[in-house]
Amino acid sequence: MQNIIMPMHEFFMGMNQLELINRAPGFFKYQPHNVAAHSWKVTQIAQFLADVESQNGAKINWQSVYEKALNHDYTERFIGDIKTPVKYATSTLRSMLADVEDSMTENFIKTEIPRQFQSAYTRRLGEGKDGSIEGQILSIADKVDLMYEAYGELEKFNPEPVFVNIFQSSLEALSEFKHMASVKYIATDILPDIFAEDFINKDLLYDLAKSLLPDFAAAENN
Amino acid sequence: MQNIIMPMHEFFMGMNQLELINRAPGFFKYQPHNVAAHSWKVTQIAQFLADVESQNGAKINWQSVYEKALNHDYTERFIGDIKTPVKYATSTLRSMLADVEDSMTENFIKTEIPRQFQSAYTRRLGEGKDGSIEGQILSIADKVDLMYEAYGELEKFNPEPVFVNIFQSSLEALSEFKHMASVKYIATDILPDIFAEDFINKDLLYDLAKSLLPDFAAAENN
Amino acid sequence: MQNIIMPMHEFFMGMNQLELINRAPGFFKYQPHNVAAHSWKVTQIAQFLADVESQNGAKINWQSVYEKALNHDYTERFIGDIKTPVKYATSTLRSMLADVEDSMTENFIKTEIPRQFQSAYTRRLGEGKDGSIEGQILSIADKVDLMYEAYGELEKFNPEPVFVNIFQSSLEALSEFKHMASVKYIATDILPDIFAEDFINKDLLYDLAKSLLPDFAAAENN
Amino acid sequence: MQNIIMPMHEFFMGMNQLELINRAPGFFKYQPHNVAAHSWKVTQIAQFLADVESQNGAKINWQSVYEKALNHDYTERFIGDIKTPVKYATSTLRSMLADVEDSMTENFIKTEIPRQFQSAYTRRLGEGKDGSIEGQILSIADKVDLMYEAYGELEKFNPEPVFVNIFQSSLEALSEFKHMASVKYIATDILPDIFAEDFINKDLLYDLAKSLLPDFAAAENN
Amino acid sequence: MQNIIMPMHEFFMGMNQLELINRAPGFFKYQPHNVAAHSWKVTQIAQFLADVESQNGAKINWQSVYEKALNHDYTERFIGDIKTPVKYATSTLRSMLADVEDSMTENFIKTEIPRQFQSAYTRRLGEGKDGSIEGQILSIADKVDLMYEAYGELEKFNPEPVFVNIFQSSLEALSEFKHMASVKYIATDILPDIFAEDFINKDLLYDLAKSLLPDFAAAENN
Amino acid sequence: MQNIIMPMHEFFMGMNQLELINRAPGFFKYQPHNVAAHSWKVTQIAQFLADVESQNGAKINWQSVYEKALNHDYTERFIGDIKTPVKYATSTLRSMLADVEDSMTENFIKTEIPRQFQSAYTRRLGEGKDGSIEGQILSIADKVDLMYEAYGELEKFNPEPVFVNIFQSSLEALSEFKHMASVKYIATDILPDIFAEDFINKDLLYDLAKSLLPDFAAAENN
Repeated sequence: MQNIIMPMHEFFMGMNQLELINRAPGFFKYQPHNVAAHSWKVTQIAQFLADVESQNGAKINWQSVYEKALNHDYTERFIGDIKTPVKYATSTLRSMLADVEDSMTENFIKTEIPRQFQSAYTRRLGEGKDGSIEGQILSIADKVDLMYEAYGELEKFNPEPVFVNIFQSSLEALSEFKHMASVKYIATDILPDIFAEDFINKDLLYDLAKSLLPDFAAAENN
Repeated sequence: MQNIIMPMHEFFMGMNQLELINRAPGFFKYQPHNVAAHSWKVTQIAQFLADVESQNGAKINWQSVYEKALNHDYTERFIGDIKTPVKYATSTLRSMLADVEDSMTENFIKTEIPRQFQSAYTRRLGEGKDGSIEGQILSIADKVDLMYEAYGELEKFNPEPVFVNIFQSSLEALSEFKHMASVKYIATDILPDIFAEDFINKDLLYDLAKSLLPDFAAAENN
Repeated sequence: MQNIIMPMHEFFMGMNQLELINRAPGFFKYQPHNVAAHSWKVTQIAQFLADVESQNGAKINWQSVYEKALNHDYTERFIGDIKTPVKYATSTLRSMLADVEDSMTENFIKTEIPRQFQSAYTRRLGEGKDGSIEGQILSIADKVDLMYEAYGELEKFNPEPVFVNIFQSSLEALSEFKHMASVKYIATDILPDIFAEDFINKDLLYDLAKSLLPDFAAAENN
Repeated sequence: MQNIIMPMHEFFMGMNQLELINRAPGFFKYQPHNVAAHSWKVTQIAQFLADVESQNGAKINWQSVYEKALNHDYTERFIGDIKTPVKYATSTLRSMLADVEDSMTENFIKTEIPRQFQSAYTRRLGEGKDGSIEGQILSIADKVDLMYEAYGELEKFNPEPVFVNIFQSSLEALSEFKHMASVKYIATDILPDIFAEDFINKDLLYDLAKSLLPDFAAAENN
Repeated sequence: MQNIIMPMHEFFMGMNQLELINRAPGFFKYQPHNVAAHSWKVTQIAQFLADVESQNGAKINWQSVYEKALNHDYTERFIGDIKTPVKYATSTLRSMLADVEDSMTENFIKTEIPRQFQSAYTRRLGEGKDGSIEGQILSIADKVDLMYEAYGELEKFNPEPVFVNIFQSSLEALSEFKHMASVKYIATDILPDIFAEDFINKDLLYDLAKSLLPDFAAAENN
Repeated sequence: MQNIIMPMHEFFMGMNQLELINRAPGFFKYQPHNVAAHSWKVTQIAQFLADVESQNGAKINWQSVYEKALNHDYTERFIGDIKTPVKYATSTLRSMLADVEDSMTENFIKTEIPRQFQSAYTRRLGEGKDGSIEGQILSIADKVDLMYEAYGELEKFNPEPVFVNIFQSSLEALSEFKHMASVKYIATDILPDIFAEDFINKDLLYDLAKSLLPDFAAAENN
């Protein structure tokens, strides 16, 4: 029906669509979040976390920090929003879905990205959350934004338990990286400000933060 | 976190969420459609198609017509919106996804539906699009609503090619059932009214309708 | 201006409009509800209430349960949203408004529904809340959804007194049917789950529920 | 439930509700219009029409022009949006509805407006469209805004025939006042600018304007 | 590009735009407020405040009360929403911005308002908040609506401190006019109703109101 | 009122606000654009333009490309949306406004950014559109996104002349950089795809593009 290939134009038009795709549809009641704006916030957070790691002596590849964060959700455009429990139901399913995502991405790059830019976009649209420090920063930044999204509902007294669950699972994910300077900084310099305000289930989450992030517990006990 | 099981209350609360889940997020620019309202429209259309089949002499199980249509998208709530090309990438993937959907539905029924209603909800939340006349009516009604959703954008001059594609694929799906009285009725008594109005790509779609639905072609040639 | 009659096409297009007509405009602050989605939820609730009645030994005409619930608000499209106090100001006014609604519906059926389907749509678009068990189920289901709509605001701490009023008047309406198995089930198995959560004016509503629904009071006192 | 009377506070809170009540729900697809904003626009238009009448030698009571326009739809808050065909179905019904509206307004004034301001609000919330020049200006201004609301959809190519109907009925209403200087001004100095732009059904409406408003026809023929 | 001057048509079309410009973008989470609806509410409040002043013996120019309030924010359309701290950073900047606003308004009047109405619109679109009693009423009414907008968020438990700040600064502005009968009335007959309800930071604001408005303190101490 | 300084927490919370601030309020009718999502799109476009420049032999500082684009509109949060004609009314006013913006940014950095990150944020929140190649890429990317935003309205047949004006002024801004490889690429490989589709005023814009961008004219003449 639409046979004309429009390299880059199609890529750019797809960005408008990501502005219209809401995250976690049906959950946020006070402030919706679209994939485009989320990607911007994650890149902002990654930029700051890289500052912290860099000041702590880590060698940061800044191009990689930005590139990974900026592009990490572009493929949501052609994959859709598969709920996490579905995605992770079995390891075989998970790897099959990953294969399909890879082959759709590959096909998109082949048809919509001009040849001379294909290797750059193969890297950009691939999985960014690898074991490199920049990949770990992306993993953390993605969870910090999710935590703030949940907090935005909790501080306005949204009682739906899903937001407590999201807040908790974000903290659990952060605790996997608790050895990193940037997660220590979140624990000692950002979380206390969040808990300085009143919101629903604050005590419950406060206890969770203390048990999951030892640096937060230490900071609070001083 | 939320250990209390709340049978039926949880089922009813889930309906509010389906009111907030938009269909084809990022595409509709003039009028959004949520899953709850879509389900109502499909049931209305199925009710009418069953009228047509019944007047044509078919034996209709009305309870089944309504039940299938009313419940056909409830599970979108815990499965999410997986884009069709992903879902159908390979037949193995498709069947694995179907298995996951089945086991999540089964688990939901076991934990959130009181025992005495479990067999009814197993039937209601299972796949309704089977080979029975009621299952075929659901398949057709689902596509007729999709066709009207696309038409609602096309008649307001939305030029994005995706709506032509949706309109076409809806017609193709209808043509698979072209032997049925209800599809004949759509071809001879409903499509002509749609084409009586001006909209983008009308000629293109008109030609498609003629080639895919012989009864429409015959009606137009009179 | 628009002389062409478009049977059924016009009926189907009208469904899109019902998706855009919000219930109680100006009141819901957290989640709007449109007439199409409300109709779907009422039909879902009616389906469940009929399960309860059926298990209690009642003879249910399932086609009628679904048909009444599915179509009960379609005529809002050409009648508009007349506030309840206006509608019920005097019994003469109420019956005159009912007459106008009837004659507009009759006229719509005559001009927009093909002759062979007119008797079915006369039944479907007529008053469904009659004295039959299916009519009573519709009356109850309509109020249960209204109660849940109010609860959705109250649980998010909307302090406007109108939602307490709606919650109360829904309970009062349910209490008129308190002899029915389905209302007993609501009182003993659904309301307690609602009151298991914290929300504004919970105590006030809890007392009301106890005074209006003896089965709820009995369940709570065990 | 809410026994405390809160004079004026209740009146002011009601204005927030009018900001949330949309006009013609289900129709406007490009730009919604709420009752509060509509009231502001009508008052702006009335102000201008009074300028024209005044320059033409009419004696204008400016306080009355503003007061009538500003308050003309406040009672929509407790009456609701009754569709015009219902309202005008029979003259008895129309007068009964008017009586109900009057008695609800009266009751509101008695309970929510402090005694010393009751006579002012009885005048303000009463019917403003009387035979005085200020009442006629309100009638015209209300229709001019409705015409602009329809034009806002037509110029963006909304093909739904309802907007042509609204545009036409607005012109018909204006033509009832065609002897007035302000309607002459609309015909000779504002309508031509509207028709200077391209929009759907422009020719049809242009012909209507010429037949209904002789001054427009004369201006165009020069 | 668009050389044709369309007097008054352009003025009226600009009103549609003011319906789409939200006040304090990014702040209101429960109910947005556009400039058009705000202007209507301010005019309503001014009308009431003028009642109070009039009953207190003041001589009110009603045309001026309405005209000032109705038109006081029309120029936001071509000036934009400059944040208050920017506007007031230095007195030179403030007066330069005022000069630019004046010259843009002057230019708009010259090109879009027909000559015979220019003097009226120069008065209407100029600064209305002068030292006359009508100008003071406008200043008070503008703040009362702002206070109600903040209250609408606070009563729904929006914890963002900006709304406390707005509530406080509105009270401070009112206290500058505390000698006026209308502000006394607000202090003694409207504020107590606001504080009769529960909302976030009620005690804090209650104390502020008592310290800023002596008449409120007196009324509460009785 | 809010004395506690919350370094970085305040910076992150501000991002939620930028998600709620719409660009050009009152203009976009089909798809709104918020500042956060715009910033993401500009960074995506800058990333691509830097690819083009790099392949053309330029030495790119990638960290700078990303940093400039990502942060270029963060200060809109405390400055507000001053309309361009106001901003540029006189060169004195423009430089005074720039001074105010600088001093507000400086103050924000001093109070809300921890000392060890202040120099990084001074660079990030300062003016990025300098004469460096990365600064020029930001200038171009900002205009390309604006052009696409206008195109999104034009392709859906929004007839308001403002979008033609925006499209034109974007092209004019691009033509200032027409010597750059990335602008040549836009002219020869992206604009033709835009003009391959039908939209309002296409011919007018096509002629403008040809006169403003010689490389586009050359590409079209082949």
